[in-house]
Amino acid sequence: MNDFDTLVQRYLATWNETDTGKRDAMVAELWADDGRYVDPIGAADGPAAVSALIGSVQQQFAGMRFELAGGIDAHHDQARFTWELGPVDGEALVVGFDVLERDHTGRIRLVLGFLDKVPTA
Amino acid sequence: MNDFDTLVQRYLATWNETDTGKRDAMVAELWADDGRYVDPIGAADGPAAVSALIGSVQQQFAGMRFELAGGIDAHHDQARFTWELGPVDGEALVVGFDVLERDHTGRIRLVLGFLDKVPTA
Repeated sequence: MNDFDTLVQRYLATWNETDTGKRDAMVAELWADDGRYVDPIGAADGPAAVSALIGSVQQQFAGMRFELAGGIDAHHDQARFTWELGPVDGEALVVGFDVLERDHTGRIRLVLGFLDKVPTA
Repeated sequence: MNDFDTLVQRYLATWNETDTGKRDAMVAELWADDGRYVDPIGAADGPAAVSALIGSVQQQFAGMRFELAGGIDAHHDQARFTWELGPVDGEALVVGFDVLERDHTGRIRLVLGFLDKVPTA
């Protein structure tokens, strides 16, 4: 795996870490202090806000897992990839797409997210 | 058209403007002074560098046109869209994908580009 594969896998792992203390530490290590996250539902500035946002999403989708769907397309300091959220071994309930940019120290400076599939009412 | 449709169309228009003076002015008006552009082939910081990069791409694909391919998916201050580059009324030679972010004044602060189809040798 190249370093972007590792970075994206670590990023997705934070979305699956439900222990708040562990997740806070993982996010703080992975993200730049001024890192920004924006998806259609929410936005967060800085690691503490990012970790809190992840926690609130986890509460809405309790027991489900985030997984990489397909490959990671990366160049320079940016990568794009599709992810899925759903029950283990079940069909994805949500499919999303992120563009992630790292800073010169290798930490996440920006994630701009979009949604390709959302749960129907 | 919502304002992001207009912004993306103005953005693509700069890629089709081959008069250097006109393009410099269009890009300066459209982009934030600290706007950044990164695609797999090149990167540019600031409107002057962005316009110069566009000019150099135009020289490689003389006579071809950039067009929006499909819809624009936008939320908050960000949009994603696919574009095509090719001869007028001909098959696209290049297909690309951009995520564009505007600042609070509505000017482009960031474009992170990827390529989905490139010319074969």
